[in-house]
Amino acid sequence: MVTSRQDCRTVYVVGVGQVPVGEHWDKSLRDLAVAALRAAVADGGGEAPGALMLGNMLGSTLSEQQHLGALIADWAGFRGIEAASVESACSSGAAALRQGYLAVKSGEHRLVAVLGAEKMTDSVNGLATAGLAMAADAESEAAIGLSFPAINALLMRRYMHEYGPEREDFAAFAMSSHANAVGNPNAMFRKAVSQKACLLAPTIADPVTLMDSAPMADGAAALILADAETAARLGRTGVRIAGSAVATDSLALQDRNELLYLEAVAASTERALAAANRSREDVDFFEVHDAFTIMSILSLEAAGYAPRGEGFRLAQEGVVVRGGRLPICTMGGLKARGHPVGATGVYQAVEAALQLRGAAGDCQVEGARVGLIQNIGGSGATVVTHVLEAE
Amino acid sequence: MVTSRQDCRTVYVVGVGQVPVGEHWDKSLRDLAVAALRAAVADGGGEAPGALMLGNMLGSTLSEQQHLGALIADWAGFRGIEAASVESACSSGAAALRQGYLAVKSGEHRLVAVLGAEKMTDSVNGLATAGLAMAADAESEAAIGLSFPAINALLMRRYMHEYGPEREDFAAFAMSSHANAVGNPNAMFRKAVSQKACLLAPTIADPVTLMDSAPMADGAAALILADAETAARLGRTGVRIAGSAVATDSLALQDRNELLYLEAVAASTERALAAANRSREDVDFFEVHDAFTIMSILSLEAAGYAPRGEGFRLAQEGVVVRGGRLPICTMGGLKARGHPVGATGVYQAVEAALQLRGAAGDCQVEGARVGLIQNIGGSGATVVTHVLEAE
Repeated sequence: MVTSRQDCRTVYVVGVGQVPVGEHWDKSLRDLAVAALRAAVADGGGEAPGALMLGNMLGSTLSEQQHLGALIADWAGFRGIEAASVESACSSGAAALRQGYLAVKSGEHRLVAVLGAEKMTDSVNGLATAGLAMAADAESEAAIGLSFPAINALLMRRYMHEYGPEREDFAAFAMSSHANAVGNPNAMFRKAVSQKACLLAPTIADPVTLMDSAPMADGAAALILADAETAARLGRTGVRIAGSAVATDSLALQDRNELLYLEAVAASTERALAAANRSREDVDFFEVHDAFTIMSILSLEAAGYAPRGEGFRLAQEGVVVRGGRLPICTMGGLKARGHPVGATGVYQAVEAALQLRGAAGDCQVEGARVGLIQNIGGSGATVVTHVLEAE
Repeated sequence: MVTSRQDCRTVYVVGVGQVPVGEHWDKSLRDLAVAALRAAVADGGGEAPGALMLGNMLGSTLSEQQHLGALIADWAGFRGIEAASVESACSSGAAALRQGYLAVKSGEHRLVAVLGAEKMTDSVNGLATAGLAMAADAESEAAIGLSFPAINALLMRRYMHEYGPEREDFAAFAMSSHANAVGNPNAMFRKAVSQKACLLAPTIADPVTLMDSAPMADGAAALILADAETAARLGRTGVRIAGSAVATDSLALQDRNELLYLEAVAASTERALAAANRSREDVDFFEVHDAFTIMSILSLEAAGYAPRGEGFRLAQEGVVVRGGRLPICTMGGLKARGHPVGATGVYQAVEAALQLRGAAGDCQVEGARVGLIQNIGGSGATVVTHVLEAE
């Protein structure tokens, strides 16, 4: 495989928008999507984008609606622009960001909207868990009854067996995310949780409990990307996409080379940092895909922030908590901000942009200049990593 | 909206692959996809692509499988490469081609695979028609019972009322597509059809009959795209993507500015030709999205090949048939080659590449040097147009 790093265009984030993550009983998928998109366009100076890249996973299964790109472009007031949906399961949001990045970098567009939207509550047929299982291998995993909590339970149980963490080690990750969400007005859950609450949480798929798992939610978030000339014209050159990379792995756990090593996280992180000409140590904060506490641990290990089997220590030891050496999930992460599946990757990007603008309010990471964001599809089969930097 | 045509890279089609379109009772979605992808890689010289852009619409609804990008990359032997699915209803295939084109043009990749795959028969729950209706507006069209034959029936009936074509005029389009498929070994239907057979065809949604409608099918087709340096190194610089453009419109017919004018076809065609620095008259053949006979007619009018209300004459008058001034659906089109929804746009591109290589066998358009291919999502809500040229 040959890749080229010949840069035609630098890509800036000139606008961001989001709706609060939660259960929006009075809003449809299109309501949420349009609100986030229009907010981002306004934040970006009001100019209509030339294209829309939309990340969504469950529109067909839960809302009986495909063709969201053209639909939302029209309903948001931008009828006619280029539009498409991008999907890679739970990494659909970041995949849409990747496509938007490619669109600007190609020179085909100067201003592109990236939108992630998901409606998981109040669905037409209530099959969210079954819909999510489509991120796994339908023939070898879903067909035998593995849902995503169960898939992560397999990983968690094996990890506990091989490396010996205590439940308290996992709880520390959940506690950290929830504590970080207290200052995020858009987060679904805004209360800190105690270790006791975590240890007493009901089991979903042993050993995964409610407090190991990110919540389903409704949400939509959007970014406006621009080339350098346009960003300068708009007076919005503060945040740049310095690196972008996508790597994949087998969908099915049984087909992985090593069960507890997320190769696609390693490859994607490596390439994104290399593209940005940055080392791991340069990263000021890391928006990890904390869909399940075990996924945070495995991500941190494969991304090179802890040796294998040592990642579980990072929360209890204060490394990845607020004020630590590498704060993660700075505005609540999937766990506490919420996980509207196809939108999550764009929320991560919006939050990173806010951090780099110095506009993260009570969640601000002091002196943040380099942010790493990572969105994972399935149990590690697609990993989309971006490096954002403050100019 | 500001767009830029600053070209960083020229994009070549260096490899093509396809499986025959039909009812593949013994092949799953992943079987079909892997076969087409591997055939294209082999045709392109055997080098592994750096990324896979996959077009598919019904994987979730009919096969309970999302996350196809990573899945197929892995199963085809390319575990680890960048991968994503792209969706814009029936134009998903061309949308994937568009994303592949952007990926090469951006400089992020030198060799990219574009794949369209669809499995519509032998589905887990047999809901193909309901799945297809997700290309329409779920709230205002599907919710009141409009399926796609019905949506096209509304268009056909109104067109007949306003412009007065006879059934024979519509039949001529179907007859032309079927005649063209006789020489295509990969077509689903390879027999010519008589005018009588068309006029006696059973009604699906009056006035749309079986012979006005493209068939559902299973299929997969793939292309390998490369930048100029790689194409030269591979000795495959024969076919180039000269222009590429996507335009959108409202999903719902009732929201269109004019019912019988496909604005997104006009805009997309205009821009693709402009990008290629070509006029309509330079086009040697046009792979029209003939999902329904009325769609061929409206496409030809909006693309500027006939005044409004006159397009219906083009088949009977011999303009768009084999040997005519502007042959369309040269290897059978959606009507006779078949319409495996998310794959169709890639079949169009594969056929165009074969024409431009002079490798279309009995379907060859003599002296073909400039090909126009167009893939439409829904009833005209997303239109993806490409211009391919022989070098």
